[in-house]
Amino acid sequence: MKIVVDAMGGDHAPAVVVDGAIQAARALETEIVLVGQQAAVEAELRKHDTAGLPITVVHASQVVEMDEHPAAAVKAKKDSSMVVGMDLVRHGEADAFVTAGNSGGALAAALFRLGRVRGIQRPALSTVFPSQTPQGHCFFLDVGANADCKPEYLLQFAIMGAVYAERILGVPRPRVAIVSNGEEVGKGNQLVQETVPLLQASGLNFVGNAEGKDIPWGIADVIVTDGFTGNVIVKLSEGVAKFITDTLKTEITSRTLSKIGAMLAKPAFDMIKRRLDYREYGGAPLLGVDGVVIVAHGRSDAYAVKNAILVAARTVENGVLEAIRRGIAPSESDAAD
Amino acid sequence: MKIVVDAMGGDHAPAVVVDGAIQAARALETEIVLVGQQAAVEAELRKHDTAGLPITVVHASQVVEMDEHPAAAVKAKKDSSMVVGMDLVRHGEADAFVTAGNSGGALAAALFRLGRVRGIQRPALSTVFPSQTPQGHCFFLDVGANADCKPEYLLQFAIMGAVYAERILGVPRPRVAIVSNGEEVGKGNQLVQETVPLLQASGLNFVGNAEGKDIPWGIADVIVTDGFTGNVIVKLSEGVAKFITDTLKTEITSRTLSKIGAMLAKPAFDMIKRRLDYREYGGAPLLGVDGVVIVAHGRSDAYAVKNAILVAARTVENGVLEAIRRGIAPSESDAAD
Repeated sequence: MKIVVDAMGGDHAPAVVVDGAIQAARALETEIVLVGQQAAVEAELRKHDTAGLPITVVHASQVVEMDEHPAAAVKAKKDSSMVVGMDLVRHGEADAFVTAGNSGGALAAALFRLGRVRGIQRPALSTVFPSQTPQGHCFFLDVGANADCKPEYLLQFAIMGAVYAERILGVPRPRVAIVSNGEEVGKGNQLVQETVPLLQASGLNFVGNAEGKDIPWGIADVIVTDGFTGNVIVKLSEGVAKFITDTLKTEITSRTLSKIGAMLAKPAFDMIKRRLDYREYGGAPLLGVDGVVIVAHGRSDAYAVKNAILVAARTVENGVLEAIRRGIAPSESDAAD
Repeated sequence: MKIVVDAMGGDHAPAVVVDGAIQAARALETEIVLVGQQAAVEAELRKHDTAGLPITVVHASQVVEMDEHPAAAVKAKKDSSMVVGMDLVRHGEADAFVTAGNSGGALAAALFRLGRVRGIQRPALSTVFPSQTPQGHCFFLDVGANADCKPEYLLQFAIMGAVYAERILGVPRPRVAIVSNGEEVGKGNQLVQETVPLLQASGLNFVGNAEGKDIPWGIADVIVTDGFTGNVIVKLSEGVAKFITDTLKTEITSRTLSKIGAMLAKPAFDMIKRRLDYREYGGAPLLGVDGVVIVAHGRSDAYAVKNAILVAARTVENGVLEAIRRGIAPSESDAAD
């Protein structure tokens, strides 16, 4: 197996990406290809002991920046690490691509260079969301690839999400829900109301509507929504979590017994931070494109990059792409275009 | 001034509603009319010392239950406290209606008995959302009246929200934002992209897109969105807040120095609970219907009911309804139908 890593992607690239890639190479039996500006990447590599590790570098002169318009940047920068990296997967020279760069850019580059799985109408960006399921999280998509969706897209997101939850997150027959503004049957905007019958008829383990308040409480293993709502949900959760923990910390440390209180409360805050930490999951797949692409958080540190590479390796090993191809095949689903 | 209170609305009606109404009557110079099943309401009144308080009871034999289908229940139950209460406002016998009952029912009853303000295409349910603005919160709508919206509806929500924020929340020239999946201009689903130019041309103090993560951090005084997204946002915030505080509490009390830790942390948790507490605001208006209607949380206790009645009184005193009528008048806005 060979995994391509976008050395230039993320807020702290290339330093933390190279560091994370080295950690992953030590943990895995797999080859890692760092794509990016060769001099910069090699300078980072020299800071570590990489003797005997299966790491190579492929040069790409350009970088898709975090704040660039994704599609335009990818079109203009044919020698960017994102495009060059995707091409390695496209040409069969590697099995997966991992990036902590511009997620819209990853989507555009994947569509542009890899294309969609046959039958998939739209790919989806996913994430692993903390939730009180037995496994401690739920798989959530779309979180931003498609601001406007059709019912058929959401059905396909559910099929792909269930495959991923089963094969990578280890959830047998995952429970699937759809985000709605009420748990009762019949609640929802037009999109939800038209999608529910498709999910009911899909053969998936569809458990109904998920209200906003239910999402953290383990109501389902896979939750689907359109990319607009999904993006708002993921970012709002971040905002609310930060608001509450910051306010609590300020309050605890501002009181008389502040030092003791802060000391006693610190392990709890550390725990909640870990619990909500995207770094543990490393990254989440871009599902529906014809190749394994894992997108990590732009703020990723070396530990998160390492975990994203491990996720990529598991995704390849467990045949997620093939399972999606089969799950979406016209003979098994009416949803293919 | 006379305020009608739905004595049968809410999870703990009529007991807490009657209690809250008595507290409001003590605090205000205004008459309160309790609408509901006379025997039950009078039994609650007898538990308190109401001597000299301007409280009267109007009988209504039926109740719109919390879990009933709103429009169907309101149509079927013409002698429900909600319909009878709205009719008092409709006939000019009272100035405002307050309910902690089924919010969809309140919307249906208001549309059915009061109708819309001339020029308003859709009314909106609103809420006061904790946020780091100078005033400690932002005004947020629609939170569920309209699952599917058109750009013109959102423009009108913004106009009505700005009037309310200025007159009731005391924010001069309130900053208005729209929920989107990215703060950059051009981000958004089709609805957002079509609404932004209307907001830019509106004369409102439009400050752009609000990402989910920005909502608690004071980015704007008034934030508009469609009722589907708004409902998900409000309920998700509740869910995430509960998830985090519960997890932290469990963690803090499960450790060795648990008792001391819990004791030291308690004031901080109490503070965050107050900070996030809908009870302080009491209720939020149903804007766009042709009358003052304040909807309180179904879980309201007496304190929340009292505050909702105070909000109703301020809304009447400050001429919110007249200001909305003027703000939306065809001569001043292209958005009227």
